[in-house]
Amino acid sequence: MLLQVIFYIAVAAEAMTAALAAGRRKMDWFGVCVLASVTALGGGTARDLLLGHYPLIWVENPYLLVLCCAAAFVPIALARYMAALRWPFLLLDALGLVVFTIIGCSIAMEMGQQPIIVIVAGLVTGIVGGILRDVLCNDIPLVFSSELYATVAIVSGVLYYLGQSAGLPHDVVIVGTIVVGFTLRVLAIVFKLEMPKFVYDKDLR
Amino acid sequence: MLLQVIFYIAVAAEAMTAALAAGRRKMDWFGVCVLASVTALGGGTARDLLLGHYPLIWVENPYLLVLCCAAAFVPIALARYMAALRWPFLLLDALGLVVFTIIGCSIAMEMGQQPIIVIVAGLVTGIVGGILRDVLCNDIPLVFSSELYATVAIVSGVLYYLGQSAGLPHDVVIVGTIVVGFTLRVLAIVFKLEMPKFVYDKDLR
Amino acid sequence: MLLQVIFYIAVAAEAMTAALAAGRRKMDWFGVCVLASVTALGGGTARDLLLGHYPLIWVENPYLLVLCCAAAFVPIALARYMAALRWPFLLLDALGLVVFTIIGCSIAMEMGQQPIIVIVAGLVTGIVGGILRDVLCNDIPLVFSSELYATVAIVSGVLYYLGQSAGLPHDVVIVGTIVVGFTLRVLAIVFKLEMPKFVYDKDLR
Repeated sequence: MLLQVIFYIAVAAEAMTAALAAGRRKMDWFGVCVLASVTALGGGTARDLLLGHYPLIWVENPYLLVLCCAAAFVPIALARYMAALRWPFLLLDALGLVVFTIIGCSIAMEMGQQPIIVIVAGLVTGIVGGILRDVLCNDIPLVFSSELYATVAIVSGVLYYLGQSAGLPHDVVIVGTIVVGFTLRVLAIVFKLEMPKFVYDKDLR
Repeated sequence: MLLQVIFYIAVAAEAMTAALAAGRRKMDWFGVCVLASVTALGGGTARDLLLGHYPLIWVENPYLLVLCCAAAFVPIALARYMAALRWPFLLLDALGLVVFTIIGCSIAMEMGQQPIIVIVAGLVTGIVGGILRDVLCNDIPLVFSSELYATVAIVSGVLYYLGQSAGLPHDVVIVGTIVVGFTLRVLAIVFKLEMPKFVYDKDLR
Repeated sequence: MLLQVIFYIAVAAEAMTAALAAGRRKMDWFGVCVLASVTALGGGTARDLLLGHYPLIWVENPYLLVLCCAAAFVPIALARYMAALRWPFLLLDALGLVVFTIIGCSIAMEMGQQPIIVIVAGLVTGIVGGILRDVLCNDIPLVFSSELYATVAIVSGVLYYLGQSAGLPHDVVIVGTIVVGFTLRVLAIVFKLEMPKFVYDKDLR
C-alpha cells in the first residue's frame, strides 16, 4: 500500500538527515547508525511505549533497523554532494512528518483512544525522533523554536481524525491530509513561518 | 477529594514554572506547551512506564494535557509580574512535590509493590518531570545539586508508607505527610539546606 | 551461578564509575546515587521497556537499588585513591559490558525474539546505561565516538546467539563469549582501536 511505501522512504530520509547531524558531532559509524535509528524510529517507539502498544514496530519488523543503518551510510558515502541535496531532504522530511503523523493517529484510533490522544499520538510519532536526536547531540530540540513543524503534525492529525470520523474513504483522507500537511510545511520553510516565541530573561530561582 | 484538587493545582503550578524555563530558552508557544506538559506529567508517566501501569493517567484523562497547555499561557500573559510571584510559585511547587510523591506511593502500594519500590515510585513521580525539563533545556538536572528536594520526596514517601502500613486513617496520613514534607521543603529553601556534595576533579579516562 | 555473581559485581562497578562522573559535575549525594542507579540499571530497564518485559529486574529485586547506592559511596570515601584504580575499573567495566550483553541476549531469546532483536537487546543492555549517564551529565554520549565499546557488545551478542543456536553447552557459550568480548575490549583500550568516524561540517539547515 502507498502509505507503507512512503513510510519506508520517510524512515530512510529521517535516518539520512540524522546521519548528517551525527557527522557534525564527529561520531563514529556506530554512533551514526544509532542516531539514525533513534531519529527514524524513536517517535513510533515513544508512542507505543506511552500507549502500551506492544510489540514495538521495529521489534516485530527488525529489518527497519537494517534500513536505518543502510540509509545512514548514504550520507557518509555521498558527503560531498549532500549540500546540493538540501531541498530533496527537506521535502522528504516534510513528507515523512505527515506520514508518521497519519500512522500514529491511525494506531491510536484503532486502539479506540479519545480524540485528544489520537492527535497527541500523531504528534509524538512525528516529532519525538527529532527531539531524541537533538538531546543525544546535546542541543535544545529544534522543534521547540524553529519554523512550523509540530504545528504541521497537529494540523495533519486533526484533519486525519476529522476525515476518518466523518466516514470519508480512507484513501481520500490520507491523500488530503498529506497534500495539506506537506504544503503547509513547505510554505513554513519558504516563508520562515514561525509560532510566536516566549522570551523571558529573568531567573525565578 | 482534597488530594485530587491539590493534584490539579500542582500540575498547573509545575506547568507554569516549566513555561518560564521555556521562555528563558526563547522557545515558541508549542515548545512552551510541550515543556509544560512533560514537566507536569513526566514524573507520573515515568512511574507508570517503569511499573507497567497502563493506561497512563493523561491518556485516560486527556484534559490534563489541556490543563498543562492552558497553565503554560499564564506566564506568557503575565510575564512582567512573574518575578513578584516567586514565592507563591515556590510554595505551590513544594506542595506539588509532596502531593505527587503521595500519589506515586499510593499507586505503587495499590499494585502491591515492595516498600523500597513504593518509595522509589513516589520519588520518580516527584522529581522526574523536573529532570526531563532540565534535559530538554540542555541543563544538568537541578535536583542533583540544589537545596533538598529529592530528600523531601523520600521523607514524604517513607512517612506515607509507614502511616499507611500502620493502619492510620488515610486522611490523617495524607495531611501529616503534606505538613511535614511541605515544611521541610520550605525550610530547605529558606535556610539553603543541601545534601553534602561530592566533588571530584580528576578524569579517570 | 557464576553469571549472577559477575552481574552483581558489574552493577557495582558501573555504579562506582558513574559516581565519579557525578563527582566531576559536583552533584550532591542524592545525585550521585541516582546517576549510579541509572547508569548501572538503565540498560536493562530500557531493554525491558522496549520488549514489554515486566516486571523490571530492579522492581522485582529492589536490593539492586541498594547495591547501586552503596557502591556509589565507595568512590566518595576513597576519592583520593581512585586515580590509582583506573585499570581495575576499566577491567570491571569491560567484564560488565559483556555480562550485561549476555543477559540481555538471553532474556530476548527466552522471549522468542528474532535474531536481530536478540543482538539489539544485548546491545541496549550493554550501552544504554552509559548513554543515560552522559545525557544527564550534559555530554554527547561517549559510546558514539570513543574506542570500541558498542562493537564489543555486538560481537559478544552475535557469539552468544550463535553458540546458543548451535546447541553448545550454556556454560561453554557464556565463558567463550566473556573471554572473546573481554579480550576485544581490553585490546581496544590498549591500542585505542576505534570505529571510523564520520566528520561532516556543513550545516544543511
